[in-house]
Amino acid sequence: MAIALNRLGALEAAHKLQRRELTAEQLVRACFARIEQREGTIHAWTALQKDAALERAQELDRGAVSGLLHGLPIGVKDLFDTVDLPTCYGSPIYERHRSAADAASVAICRAEGAIVLGKTVTTEFASYVPGPTRNPRNEAYTPGGSSSGSAAAVADSMVPFALGTQTAGSIIRPAAYCGIVGFKPTFGAITRAGVKPLAESLDTVGGFARSVPDVALFASVLMRDARMRDLAYDAKPRIGMYRSLQWRHAQSETKEAYAQAAATLSRMGARVEEVALPSEHAALVQLHADVMAYEASQALAYERLAHGGQISPKLLAMLEAGARITAEEHIRNLERAAQARARVDNWFESHDVLLAPSASGEAPFADLGTGDPQFCRAWTLFGLPCLHLPFATGPQGLPVGLQMVGRRHDDHRLLAIGAWAHQKLLEAAGGPDIGGSHVWPRG
Amino acid sequence: MAIALNRLGALEAAHKLQRRELTAEQLVRACFARIEQREGTIHAWTALQKDAALERAQELDRGAVSGLLHGLPIGVKDLFDTVDLPTCYGSPIYERHRSAADAASVAICRAEGAIVLGKTVTTEFASYVPGPTRNPRNEAYTPGGSSSGSAAAVADSMVPFALGTQTAGSIIRPAAYCGIVGFKPTFGAITRAGVKPLAESLDTVGGFARSVPDVALFASVLMRDARMRDLAYDAKPRIGMYRSLQWRHAQSETKEAYAQAAATLSRMGARVEEVALPSEHAALVQLHADVMAYEASQALAYERLAHGGQISPKLLAMLEAGARITAEEHIRNLERAAQARARVDNWFESHDVLLAPSASGEAPFADLGTGDPQFCRAWTLFGLPCLHLPFATGPQGLPVGLQMVGRRHDDHRLLAIGAWAHQKLLEAAGGPDIGGSHVWPRG
Repeated sequence: MAIALNRLGALEAAHKLQRRELTAEQLVRACFARIEQREGTIHAWTALQKDAALERAQELDRGAVSGLLHGLPIGVKDLFDTVDLPTCYGSPIYERHRSAADAASVAICRAEGAIVLGKTVTTEFASYVPGPTRNPRNEAYTPGGSSSGSAAAVADSMVPFALGTQTAGSIIRPAAYCGIVGFKPTFGAITRAGVKPLAESLDTVGGFARSVPDVALFASVLMRDARMRDLAYDAKPRIGMYRSLQWRHAQSETKEAYAQAAATLSRMGARVEEVALPSEHAALVQLHADVMAYEASQALAYERLAHGGQISPKLLAMLEAGARITAEEHIRNLERAAQARARVDNWFESHDVLLAPSASGEAPFADLGTGDPQFCRAWTLFGLPCLHLPFATGPQGLPVGLQMVGRRHDDHRLLAIGAWAHQKLLEAAGGPDIGGSHVWPRG
Repeated sequence: MAIALNRLGALEAAHKLQRRELTAEQLVRACFARIEQREGTIHAWTALQKDAALERAQELDRGAVSGLLHGLPIGVKDLFDTVDLPTCYGSPIYERHRSAADAASVAICRAEGAIVLGKTVTTEFASYVPGPTRNPRNEAYTPGGSSSGSAAAVADSMVPFALGTQTAGSIIRPAAYCGIVGFKPTFGAITRAGVKPLAESLDTVGGFARSVPDVALFASVLMRDARMRDLAYDAKPRIGMYRSLQWRHAQSETKEAYAQAAATLSRMGARVEEVALPSEHAALVQLHADVMAYEASQALAYERLAHGGQISPKLLAMLEAGARITAEEHIRNLERAAQARARVDNWFESHDVLLAPSASGEAPFADLGTGDPQFCRAWTLFGLPCLHLPFATGPQGLPVGLQMVGRRHDDHRLLAIGAWAHQKLLEAAGGPDIGGSHVWPRG
């Protein structure tokens, strides 16, 4: 029985906790039982605090229920500062680092009753060099990055929710590879205070859960938006299908999922239309990479200039490439991004959301890195909210899905339409109804 | 002789250091002599490191000259992380805090040869509650805030340059009250990594010096923009005079400085025109305050939720007011700000720069707080680059000036026109020529 509880979704667990049908201690124990069983294989965590988590759970069980996240166990990507756990940013430079405060987002979750079980693996400073984490669907494969540990921990039912960040594709891609829901809100919508910066005009805080309503519960707290706790959507959504100019890199499973989603959602009443691909969008992948490299070379200046020898060759090469970009070039890049963004913002006059590939296909083998963020870079550059929906399976038996992209600051509607679409897509795929307890079928 | 050296401007000192006509040790000793003489009165510093600074100076004197800031002593606002000095953010919550890294901007200055003498006083988390710093022109008055110590240290010739930040008016206002040059670049132009966040869509890193070319030298390094090291400007600038909708709060000395600047610069060949005041701009002061309160209540969530008892009543009230603003309201506020910003961006089709009040007038008495940022809030909300130019004196014998506002990302031109205008304004006021060694005449 303890093992089954760890598979509860955040929303269903929250309801049971608030009705006192479940204690926080039971839930934390169930999550730790799962972690103890699987962590030797998955390596999702950099630090765990079982005793402190149980103590906090007991304290919550003794007191009145007050917070919206009362008793919910969470994982925190090790890019977020935490006052009671080591914070190493995936880098040997910070091997013995302890921060003096919680990141603001962690503090907000804790104040609403969430219990931090531990820190999850991040790639080096949320860039490209992988940590030890493996994909819970099949350990030969990468969970994706940079939020590798958060995605794997949620996918493996070690926690119902985990915090992550996205600068290129670091939430959507690992969600896709692990077969869970990943949500990157509108740029700036969740405070980044206490999160190690990588690229200031791109870094976005978000998270992972196993259903859209589950991720929306946490988003509602972090974004202070009560509308996200009621995802009823009774209009017919207007969905723009956007192949992306990287379509030639999409593998067959992605193309099939794309066609299947268009057919299913159209049959279910959505107005589904292909969106034309502006040819100048082909340049956006490189444009994003240049903006990221320039800003990372600035944000990681201390590490680059004072501890360059402890930075991986791959990251150092990116930082040095960024350091060769002049301010004039960077400003031109930002202006080009703003022009493209304005054009895309207009698409939302005729579409409520867009549906696009999240990744080229199933997760690559773990020894090939964490996969390519090319299908995510433009949306991150635009600052638009993105939601990964898992609903299909590829030739290796690994998860496949699509990302839904919303209008800027229209996150609550993206989540509502996403919850509707996810349910329809899972039903069509023969999967279970997505209540709070939904767990995407294991591959 | 040691005392005179501390009055050298950054650019002149840099030239002497690079030509080995001056050693870094001589300059650091001169600055510390000034600090030792005056700190008991001014209280600009929260921490000093004389031995380490002298050691670094000697090391630089022994080696080859390589960096653009070789041997230049600087002060760092105690909102920036520093690896070798305490970092307390002006709050008792961080009384014994040591950060694990330098803020990226500090690391960039150090890598170019700057020597950090110490940390300067900030108000509590860069908000309103003052530290102990006094105005070097007259100790009965405030130096302004939140970058109180940085402005006072530069004005008192303790250092030729100091780092600061602006979220409302925290660079321009203290520069105005202390009679020095303050530069707040375009939003996002200098990395904020390692600077304690207050409001993420507003916080901007900048600095103080005693002349425009001096501040431009540091800006060129921090913004990676070589154009700022050659401020020659030979066109006739088109200057828009912008009274601001807070004009009724402008004191007579500000109105006189405004009229005097318009007359002088017009006589010197600039095309000077009054800009119409859009009546909806009256709402921008409150709009900025609401955006700041919402974002501060998020960014300081850890402090608010876990250490509320150690936050001043005034800041706590702002954070609690911010916490009552919903996401929907905040998004509407951001949209209103973006609309107003787009309109103002258009003004730069016909004006190269705007000239506007920096503050209502001379510095208020120290026991009245750090003054009102009302003349700065709209520009910070718009993210436009601002440069304070001191050139006049008010009825109490305290400094008065105006701020020049540039087009977004046109910082190098703002600095070039600002250098030209500052020289003309000082000449007209009977002040000295502004070479690198210029020190604004003491009140």
